[in-house]
Amino acid sequence: MDRLTSIPAYSLPPANRRVLLARRPHGVPQPDDFAIDQAAIPEIGPREFLVRNIYLSVDPAQRGWASAEANYSQPVRLGTPMRALAVGVVVRSNDPEVREGEFLYGWFGWQDYAAADRGRIMMRCRAAVPLSAHAGLLGINGLTAHLAMTELGRPVAGDVLLVSTAAGSVGGFVGQIGKLLGCRTVGLTGDDVKVALCRERFGYDEAHNYRTADLDAVLPDGINVFFDNTGGAILDAALRRMAVGGRVVQCGTAANQAWTPPPTGPRNEREVLTRRLVWSGFVVMDHAVRFEDSTRQLAAWHLDGRLAYEEDISDGIEHAPGALAELYAGRNQGKKLIYVG
Amino acid sequence: MDRLTSIPAYSLPPANRRVLLARRPHGVPQPDDFAIDQAAIPEIGPREFLVRNIYLSVDPAQRGWASAEANYSQPVRLGTPMRALAVGVVVRSNDPEVREGEFLYGWFGWQDYAAADRGRIMMRCRAAVPLSAHAGLLGINGLTAHLAMTELGRPVAGDVLLVSTAAGSVGGFVGQIGKLLGCRTVGLTGDDVKVALCRERFGYDEAHNYRTADLDAVLPDGINVFFDNTGGAILDAALRRMAVGGRVVQCGTAANQAWTPPPTGPRNEREVLTRRLVWSGFVVMDHAVRFEDSTRQLAAWHLDGRLAYEEDISDGIEHAPGALAELYAGRNQGKKLIYVG
Repeated sequence: MDRLTSIPAYSLPPANRRVLLARRPHGVPQPDDFAIDQAAIPEIGPREFLVRNIYLSVDPAQRGWASAEANYSQPVRLGTPMRALAVGVVVRSNDPEVREGEFLYGWFGWQDYAAADRGRIMMRCRAAVPLSAHAGLLGINGLTAHLAMTELGRPVAGDVLLVSTAAGSVGGFVGQIGKLLGCRTVGLTGDDVKVALCRERFGYDEAHNYRTADLDAVLPDGINVFFDNTGGAILDAALRRMAVGGRVVQCGTAANQAWTPPPTGPRNEREVLTRRLVWSGFVVMDHAVRFEDSTRQLAAWHLDGRLAYEEDISDGIEHAPGALAELYAGRNQGKKLIYVG
Repeated sequence: MDRLTSIPAYSLPPANRRVLLARRPHGVPQPDDFAIDQAAIPEIGPREFLVRNIYLSVDPAQRGWASAEANYSQPVRLGTPMRALAVGVVVRSNDPEVREGEFLYGWFGWQDYAAADRGRIMMRCRAAVPLSAHAGLLGINGLTAHLAMTELGRPVAGDVLLVSTAAGSVGGFVGQIGKLLGCRTVGLTGDDVKVALCRERFGYDEAHNYRTADLDAVLPDGINVFFDNTGGAILDAALRRMAVGGRVVQCGTAANQAWTPPPTGPRNEREVLTRRLVWSGFVVMDHAVRFEDSTRQLAAWHLDGRLAYEEDISDGIEHAPGALAELYAGRNQGKKLIYVG
């Protein structure tokens, strides 16, 4: 791939500021659930390398990682740095295949420095897009949107695509990719500014504010693909408007903040049966074999001007503890990152 | 295929007794929801034929057909014969491709005689099994079990298969087909006699009475394929024991007797997501292109002694009005048919 563009300045501070998970959150993690400390720069062992983080990623899935509930990954241990993706630069390496000065996207946590091995790398940052875009456009957000659509949603031209969290860091891509694949796209989002963003920036054919609209009035009939990041009442309404043979891609469940005990709602198995739905759960790490192909496609669309990408970058690690609460309150516009360089 | 075996005697009465849907049932159709009348034998038009029914089929899906709710087929009109599959013999034909004396399985309704065209034929009865078996083993029950497993459940050897209504007219086949495909099979059923039937007749590795057992104690962990005919509490419990990547095949929703308004239960989207389930609805008529292959496989297994088949045949059309209530009360043992010959 081409050379990286827009590499920001970064310093090499003498200590490691870390955002530790201080206690188990109830629902969405709040600022007080975290504590920032300062530790020594970690030593690296054989075949390890030291990463200086530049952008910390803020992702909805972190709520689940921080909780004690059974989940698709082990809970983050209390008193350890919050699990997170980040983009950073290699400043020291005992691994001959990882060069000093190389930029990486991987599981480096909410901290300045991480000692890591190759298993922690999600992707090497080499595409001709700004460095920060490797944490969003080409990172977990773009990959999730592209692979959820191509592996599970599988729209054909003319399909009706409904997207919840339509202006979010994943949903914005899903809507655009849906258009690129020939769908009629309908977006749901939580405020009127984002409704406008959906229409103007992400090219949705229709967009609605689910907090103020009557869902039954605005949802299209015959939804072929529903990309759902919310669950809850939006899911219940959408299931009742699916086309026969429609695909429901469950990518998140942001509408419910706690799952112990499980919240209740209308039973949905009759909709699955009578509409012959295929309702699947999507977790991007299951599809690692397709990451390289997918980033190539995403970068090409973006460089052609056909795939817009929004970022919402806060400056300073002190913004990390409150970042998830902001994300779940819908106060970000685009991919939320913390610049810590 | 080989010649039919065990063709029962049948008469040609001078009038047509019909089981009419007299009013919309509330939940499971009860005897009083039907009325039996006597009408003239129907005339046949060009390219039609007259079928003398011999076995009327009793199927759980008839509850949905009789209800006024939106469904995967149009509701049966009040005052018309109850929609049903049946096995009959052609006694008169204006269709050169349908011979008099030929035995057919098709949409002939709960009545003695039906005027039909070729679109109403589901299958011609030609396999070397008893005529009645064409309405069950090779009919909607066997086809549903075989195609739900091979098209949607897709077990591989060593998979854990859970079956609800495990001793039913479909579930008994599902368990046996699961064993034939190499699964470890666990059946749930509603009384102890059926638990024994599951183990002794249908070869389940384990079977439990869901009315008396503690579901959480008896359900296996890591269910790879769940064939579900019930929905409700069994579904909720099983979803929480699925393996990552498991397939849930929704084939019926017998646990809930009415869907307007929809009953409530624990929300399940988090299970779909974190376990990356594929939860699909199965309606056998969607898979008509595979019926012929499927009946060939089912007949071969049965004739080899590897696929047992149970029937529960009542004698006389006067048993039809109460047959669905009996079915939903679990009082049948095997495929329920009404002999009207």
